[in-house]
Amino acid sequence: MSERRLTTPSPMQPQMCRAAVFHRAGQPLSMEEFPRPSLLAGEALVRIRLCTICGSDLHTLKGLRIEPTPSILAHEVVGEIVELADPGPRDVEGQPLGIGDRVTWSVCVSCFECDRCLSGMPQKCRQVVKYGHSVADGREALSGGLAEYILLRRGTTIARLPAELPDEVASPINCATSTIAAAYRMAGDVSDQRILIFGAGMLGLTAVALGKESGAKQVAICDVDPQRLELAKRFGATDALSVDSIGATQVPFDVILECSGSPDAIETACRVGDVGARVILVGSVMESRPVQLDPTSIVRKWLSIIGVHNYAPVDLRSAIDFISRCHHKYPFAELVARTFDLSETNAAIEYSIEHRPIRVAVRPKSPA
Amino acid sequence: MSERRLTTPSPMQPQMCRAAVFHRAGQPLSMEEFPRPSLLAGEALVRIRLCTICGSDLHTLKGLRIEPTPSILAHEVVGEIVELADPGPRDVEGQPLGIGDRVTWSVCVSCFECDRCLSGMPQKCRQVVKYGHSVADGREALSGGLAEYILLRRGTTIARLPAELPDEVASPINCATSTIAAAYRMAGDVSDQRILIFGAGMLGLTAVALGKESGAKQVAICDVDPQRLELAKRFGATDALSVDSIGATQVPFDVILECSGSPDAIETACRVGDVGARVILVGSVMESRPVQLDPTSIVRKWLSIIGVHNYAPVDLRSAIDFISRCHHKYPFAELVARTFDLSETNAAIEYSIEHRPIRVAVRPKSPA
Repeated sequence: MSERRLTTPSPMQPQMCRAAVFHRAGQPLSMEEFPRPSLLAGEALVRIRLCTICGSDLHTLKGLRIEPTPSILAHEVVGEIVELADPGPRDVEGQPLGIGDRVTWSVCVSCFECDRCLSGMPQKCRQVVKYGHSVADGREALSGGLAEYILLRRGTTIARLPAELPDEVASPINCATSTIAAAYRMAGDVSDQRILIFGAGMLGLTAVALGKESGAKQVAICDVDPQRLELAKRFGATDALSVDSIGATQVPFDVILECSGSPDAIETACRVGDVGARVILVGSVMESRPVQLDPTSIVRKWLSIIGVHNYAPVDLRSAIDFISRCHHKYPFAELVARTFDLSETNAAIEYSIEHRPIRVAVRPKSPA
Repeated sequence: MSERRLTTPSPMQPQMCRAAVFHRAGQPLSMEEFPRPSLLAGEALVRIRLCTICGSDLHTLKGLRIEPTPSILAHEVVGEIVELADPGPRDVEGQPLGIGDRVTWSVCVSCFECDRCLSGMPQKCRQVVKYGHSVADGREALSGGLAEYILLRRGTTIARLPAELPDEVASPINCATSTIAAAYRMAGDVSDQRILIFGAGMLGLTAVALGKESGAKQVAICDVDPQRLELAKRFGATDALSVDSIGATQVPFDVILECSGSPDAIETACRVGDVGARVILVGSVMESRPVQLDPTSIVRKWLSIIGVHNYAPVDLRSAIDFISRCHHKYPFAELVARTFDLSETNAAIEYSIEHRPIRVAVRPKSPA
């Protein structure tokens, strides 16, 4: 980190960058300008092609989740490298990156030196920084997706995207898709198994398709919204269960992915888990009532209840591999209901809150 | 199973066998005689050398746990093979067994053909039979440890014991030691990690020693009984924590083994588990109040909560290996407070309930 190498920005690139800045919950974002940062070793400057708004962004905007301010929200982003430090970063495969590469990257920046990084949990790095969750201040201000540019720090896992993958499909890779890849990594082999998924949002729909592609015998989905259950069938769900019908089901499951964040769902998951079942908790990122679980049943059924939050570089790689192979088989491209210009970010947020689509996207105009 | 091969018992062996039979909770066991069974393919008849009384036996005797009756209780046993069917069983290494071999064996009899057996969980076999937990009736009546002989059924994992291992040390191998081996298998690598164990009974003391031998940096123990905490130090505990002091501890742990069965301990375990911690539940085999857990903390800490009940053949092998290598380094031999003759089984039980030692043993007189 001590080596400081300044690079001269290309004259084609502007010296100031626009971003939609979050100051306080319930207030509109304000369009502000930030100076283009000079790069240090290992860094890259990326022009944002498309940013999708995640459920966690909406939580912050509504005040249900507290983040430092002022900040540039959003972390689901696809961009194009416009400047590289010297030495520049390498991609997740260890290959050098180049100007013009279309990339995605890990939501977490990790030091890869602390005990947590060294024990295989860089997503829980002692110095972790998360894109879309940091104060927009100083040289590293451009750290969120609702902007024209983003500064990729040293310690970011960066991955190139196949050309044929639409931006709309690629954008959630570094959030929902990678988290679900991590969840399946923790669940172990699911081939020929019975999977149940709670919550048919971005996480759950991705989990349905990935479970299907991983050779599961059954992929059941449970949600409160009948329309989302219908959508889940198009992602490969074999059974669409209402909350009432899941209460009555006697069929046990081998793997249960809880993507809704509902404590009721967690309690049901432990009840319908078969002997040896893995219950993977993904959705519970907001405060809720405690869950009440029967310890005897956990012991006698040899249940595993495993929390998953963020993901490791290996999961980003799995996620890209999965989406690249399978995106045309499932309607991922339809999940972005509307796309707005960066200057219309507040309208995008309003639309998202009012209509509750799976995703809306923000696309900054390309530079002239 | 269809091949029926009768063998002729040696004239040195009696035709009738004595056993202490359990009919009803709170009543003394009655000494009864059973005919020596004729063996089917894959079976062995074993003369019991020593049987230790497990906490679960005391639960049944007190009526806290319901078992079918009449039955011959107890499953922690060391014995000597006196008769083998033709073809006879092989040991866990696949080697033929011989008359006179001193052996221990899995508490579970598994079919090794059903879905659970084939998925690596023979301890949860669809046709599972457990020694010390079956009705003492018919040809297979001799299925518990409080007897002169026991019939080892086809599907039992049998292992030879090293000659230098005392019966008293070897007897709990097929219960507490193997269960703890399974718990550590589920916990993964513990080298250089911080372990916390709840409950300093047979399970917990074994967990302390095995954690120590597995290279843990810290092995803390928590129990309500100060004497047991002192005993745990002799098994290698680095920290002895009272229930009050555990409540105040801020030090996080990487692996927590819950061997006490207390719901409070489970809740504390999840609180003091560090990021990435594995909380292994072993003790909760009796009904208790539900545990209340914070799902957000499980998710954000990437906690794994894993129930372990019984064990697989691989764990029996690990348990024998561990005890054989390390029994002289820890006071395992002292854990059997007193040894009684089979005819004194009721006195052994009374002593056990009154004095609460870690173990009492019952040793049938050798045949004249």
